[in-house]
Amino acid sequence: MATLNTKTGQVVDRSVLDSMLRRRMFYTPSFEIYGGVSGLYDYGPPGCALVTNIVDLWRRHFVLEEDMLEVDCTMLTPHDVLKTSGHVDKFADWMCKDPKTGEIFRADHLIEEVLEARLKGDKEARGQKVVVDEEKEAKKKKKVKETKAVKLDDNVVKQYEEILAQIDNYDGHELAELIAVHDIRNPTTGGNLLPPVSFNLMFQTSIGPSGNLPGYLRPETAQGQFLNFQKLLEFNQQGMPFASASIGKSFRNEISPRSGLLRVREFLMAEIEHFVDPEGGKKHPRFDEVKDVEMTFLNRAVQLSGSTKTEQMTIGKAVESGLVDNETLGYFIARIQLFLLKLGVDKKKLRFRQHMANEMAHYATDCWDAELQTSYGWIECVGCADRSAYDLTVHKNKTGAPLVVRETRAEPLRIEEWQIDLDKKKFGPRFKKDSKTVEAAVDALSQELREKLALDLDQNGKIEVDVEGVGSGKVELEKDLIKIEKRTRVENVREYTPNVIEPSFGIGRILYSVIEHVYWSRPEDAARGVLSFPPVIAPTKVLLVPLSTHPSFRPLTQRMMAKLRRMGVANRVDDSSASIGKRYARNDELGTPFGITIDFQSVKDNTFTLRDRDTTKQVRASEDEILQAVKSLVDGEETWEDIRKRLPEFTGQDVE
Amino acid sequence: MATLNTKTGQVVDRSVLDSMLRRRMFYTPSFEIYGGVSGLYDYGPPGCALVTNIVDLWRRHFVLEEDMLEVDCTMLTPHDVLKTSGHVDKFADWMCKDPKTGEIFRADHLIEEVLEARLKGDKEARGQKVVVDEEKEAKKKKKVKETKAVKLDDNVVKQYEEILAQIDNYDGHELAELIAVHDIRNPTTGGNLLPPVSFNLMFQTSIGPSGNLPGYLRPETAQGQFLNFQKLLEFNQQGMPFASASIGKSFRNEISPRSGLLRVREFLMAEIEHFVDPEGGKKHPRFDEVKDVEMTFLNRAVQLSGSTKTEQMTIGKAVESGLVDNETLGYFIARIQLFLLKLGVDKKKLRFRQHMANEMAHYATDCWDAELQTSYGWIECVGCADRSAYDLTVHKNKTGAPLVVRETRAEPLRIEEWQIDLDKKKFGPRFKKDSKTVEAAVDALSQELREKLALDLDQNGKIEVDVEGVGSGKVELEKDLIKIEKRTRVENVREYTPNVIEPSFGIGRILYSVIEHVYWSRPEDAARGVLSFPPVIAPTKVLLVPLSTHPSFRPLTQRMMAKLRRMGVANRVDDSSASIGKRYARNDELGTPFGITIDFQSVKDNTFTLRDRDTTKQVRASEDEILQAVKSLVDGEETWEDIRKRLPEFTGQDVE
Repeated sequence: MATLNTKTGQVVDRSVLDSMLRRRMFYTPSFEIYGGVSGLYDYGPPGCALVTNIVDLWRRHFVLEEDMLEVDCTMLTPHDVLKTSGHVDKFADWMCKDPKTGEIFRADHLIEEVLEARLKGDKEARGQKVVVDEEKEAKKKKKVKETKAVKLDDNVVKQYEEILAQIDNYDGHELAELIAVHDIRNPTTGGNLLPPVSFNLMFQTSIGPSGNLPGYLRPETAQGQFLNFQKLLEFNQQGMPFASASIGKSFRNEISPRSGLLRVREFLMAEIEHFVDPEGGKKHPRFDEVKDVEMTFLNRAVQLSGSTKTEQMTIGKAVESGLVDNETLGYFIARIQLFLLKLGVDKKKLRFRQHMANEMAHYATDCWDAELQTSYGWIECVGCADRSAYDLTVHKNKTGAPLVVRETRAEPLRIEEWQIDLDKKKFGPRFKKDSKTVEAAVDALSQELREKLALDLDQNGKIEVDVEGVGSGKVELEKDLIKIEKRTRVENVREYTPNVIEPSFGIGRILYSVIEHVYWSRPEDAARGVLSFPPVIAPTKVLLVPLSTHPSFRPLTQRMMAKLRRMGVANRVDDSSASIGKRYARNDELGTPFGITIDFQSVKDNTFTLRDRDTTKQVRASEDEILQAVKSLVDGEETWEDIRKRLPEFTGQDVE
Repeated sequence: MATLNTKTGQVVDRSVLDSMLRRRMFYTPSFEIYGGVSGLYDYGPPGCALVTNIVDLWRRHFVLEEDMLEVDCTMLTPHDVLKTSGHVDKFADWMCKDPKTGEIFRADHLIEEVLEARLKGDKEARGQKVVVDEEKEAKKKKKVKETKAVKLDDNVVKQYEEILAQIDNYDGHELAELIAVHDIRNPTTGGNLLPPVSFNLMFQTSIGPSGNLPGYLRPETAQGQFLNFQKLLEFNQQGMPFASASIGKSFRNEISPRSGLLRVREFLMAEIEHFVDPEGGKKHPRFDEVKDVEMTFLNRAVQLSGSTKTEQMTIGKAVESGLVDNETLGYFIARIQLFLLKLGVDKKKLRFRQHMANEMAHYATDCWDAELQTSYGWIECVGCADRSAYDLTVHKNKTGAPLVVRETRAEPLRIEEWQIDLDKKKFGPRFKKDSKTVEAAVDALSQELREKLALDLDQNGKIEVDVEGVGSGKVELEKDLIKIEKRTRVENVREYTPNVIEPSFGIGRILYSVIEHVYWSRPEDAARGVLSFPPVIAPTKVLLVPLSTHPSFRPLTQRMMAKLRRMGVANRVDDSSASIGKRYARNDELGTPFGITIDFQSVKDNTFTLRDRDTTKQVRASEDEILQAVKSLVDGEETWEDIRKRLPEFTGQDVE
């Protein structure tokens, strides 16, 4: 396990944290009474509230702040759409089956593990110290249980190291070769494996009763947004740039899920597709607002040189120096950081890592990941990809739908070009049923070809044009049928396919990483955890704690509860007979930031104490003052320090 | 089409409304540029905001108000869970295929249509007036395009009418017989159909790479809640009664979807599972708060008598008279009504209809639907079912998980019963590997059988017990192996399986029905629709309208926008060059309840006009007063009438 420290310097013990999260029902394996299904988790009440609050903040931070057009598209997606988008062919991993045991291995992971184990064995045999990359180890559900101290040839060591350096770079054929050449087998049984086959990671189903319409559960929310581009542009009254946004579940049929919430088969995503004119350097009108945000970058070149050394700079500097390609990409990267910090992410455990060329998704031309450091290592929680015009172009080409922007030019554009006139009256009698096909082939001729053909026609009185599917595949056209001339065309409307900048958030990964960042325990009670969620995302904002089960407290508790509810402040009552200290400790584990104690003094003079989770300090004031303070804390208008300065401290009760 | 009138008495023209909803992108067919997939719709920006606001209100009205335990479970569900729940066997419709054309028909719908067409033809032949049930017609995507005037025997007419009266009541075998006997064919081609086969309405898929774990997309969110019952009870510190709640997508692979948003294949549900002790009459502690709510009921007996006559009474009266079985069911029925009215449902277009015995889902013992009247007829939008202990019991029996409540009895219970002692030392040598099976079979003997066996044992010195799978299936036990005696057992803990009351909301259906209820048009501009959403669910609360594109308005607009955003009030600016009247009309169609106009007077003295969508009246006041009024209106603290009384009316601009 990678070592991760809490804010207070304790080492995060993941097994202790995990057991606390399950005990408090943040999340739990789905279908556990049926033995569970790996990669599927349910959120319990506090987890569910946390998700809702994170999504709500996301919506305010991104969607409302920038008037993004939120859409909600179906998860069921017909085959054709995902064939066009490239997911049917490319959203896959290679897997190998052991024909004897039926076990299935992800091919690249298996080769990696086996070769690493051999290199480790070699080092042991050579008497060298074995340095384990703990992060890498922690990410794996290891198939290779033990290593054997066997010395390898120097040549072989070098070869293995070269393979490992580019393990993400092999296709199925190459993986098959590696497995054969290096005799890679089932690590447990030593059995031979079948050659790798491509396993598509989408869940397949069939839509409707006929079985003729195959479909998938979407692997991302993005496609629905792209398919609606035309309507969204129309809704936006043709205004560019604009962004659409979507929050919803996506699916990925992992070969062997692991790492808890970090790699699951069904997950909540929040995705933005920002459509921008590719011309003019992709400027962003609000870039100035973020340009001074300080960030940590891990760029592509550094990684290719084998290092993970980061550098600090402002996003303004990063864009200026070309490290981040353009303002729009930079604007979103900075906004992503601001969002994550609001959630309680520890800035020291956040970096932006640029993808290397070979690891990018098939649609991306550049991609930066917001990575959060956890006990599993650095985890990609937000991707910010430049998908260029890829998606809109492929869907436009496939369907003919005009997924483009048409813009009246301020100055009409004059274009010199080779234009073709056909004598269509003569085309019919000559080509009969093939007329349309020949016309289309002629229309599709490039400017370069037209120039050349114009010369041919002039010299020979006829030309030859390739027309697939007609006659021999070549068609002869004489001077009386075709004319090719250079002319000037005036273009008043500019038509272009927008580029897409896509910030894409994995809500479950963010949620889990934030939990690790805000988790700590008090020196005086190391067994009990505390989750210091910022009030804005805390599942419950206020715990109401009557001092005892004495009946005189009940009306006050009820009144406070009703008032808080009316103010929209999520609260819970704990009127169990446990000690106040125990009740607060339970709620520290749930991350409840504030507590209101109702005691005999409250019954007499209607004053209450308000307790802060992180400092355990208390203040005492009238009902109205306490309620107003809570509201102000939850809305983020005041901090606990502000409240402590203006309301009298209370040290009366012994609550711990 | 069923006739539905707006609040102002106009007839709802569904085609006009539909085209407005698509133009304003409330929703749109999914994958339209690929030809679309029936039964799948995407929500555009206003639809999406509407869904979010409805869900948010639902969460406040139900979850927060009653401290329900919200969970979020996966949609992917393994086969075993849904086998146990009964969905694999019973969540199905019967379909017939035309082997020549490949067309697929839902069997009951087809028989219904064909017989109705023949009856209609008969009436025509007899020269009788044909009264068309418009509601019923509107619900159908009709297969029978025209009727032929053919006179039928009086006997046949009677027979047809009897079949139609109980069309929901036939199983597959009976449907096959009806098709054969009455020569029912493909209405278009006259071709013969294959016998009906059961079509399961769940989408099937396969989880993981091996293909060995079949799964489905859930048909309801309920199962995930039931499977987590034990953990939820623990989370609730063993307190009963309590409710869990879940908001999420469910799926139903309709044979032939129709009626727009009302019958779709992927839909958002919000479901509550309220767990209650079956003993003690299912009282509800907060029933008094709702007992005077006046409601419209359509009970089972009335429907069976062939009528749809409703009766009005308070829910208190309905429970008292036994019409509604118990307080808990009654409490939720009343709360459902209160929720629907908050959304803008027209009370005259709301009724609660009790299910007849044969139409209930396989798990329900009683069910009331909240039905909303629309142009498609009365539509079930919320179901409120008593699922008794069905689900917890079947999952407990299948998995052995203790999905029960254990409660210390105030008074220990003394139970007289027949107890069995086995001499286990002798069991091993005698039954060897079958020992456990025999023991289990003996343990499972009923009290009745034990009494009889005690007598046998006493008389014969031995007894015979049925043990499946051991020897001949019967095992002989002698006196030295077994003792059966009547003894008194003292039970200090009561163990019971809770009953479940389930209010289940179809958000898309509610959304569409509410739209029809709040839709109208102004007499002076009948071509333009108005959607009078209550502010709480309106997609956008305030439209900011600068009088013209004059640059002096811009800073004021920006400031207002920022302030509203900070107050959490969703707003949009329309600074297009269209007339103010046009801009307001556009936003009437989007259902934006308020508008703030920024004019030259605003630049001078920082006063603004506030316009009410429904009355088109305006008031004028200072920036702070206007913002405060908006906040108060959106939060539901004041009505427009309140505002109009306390702020000066403005009649200056001609905005229409």
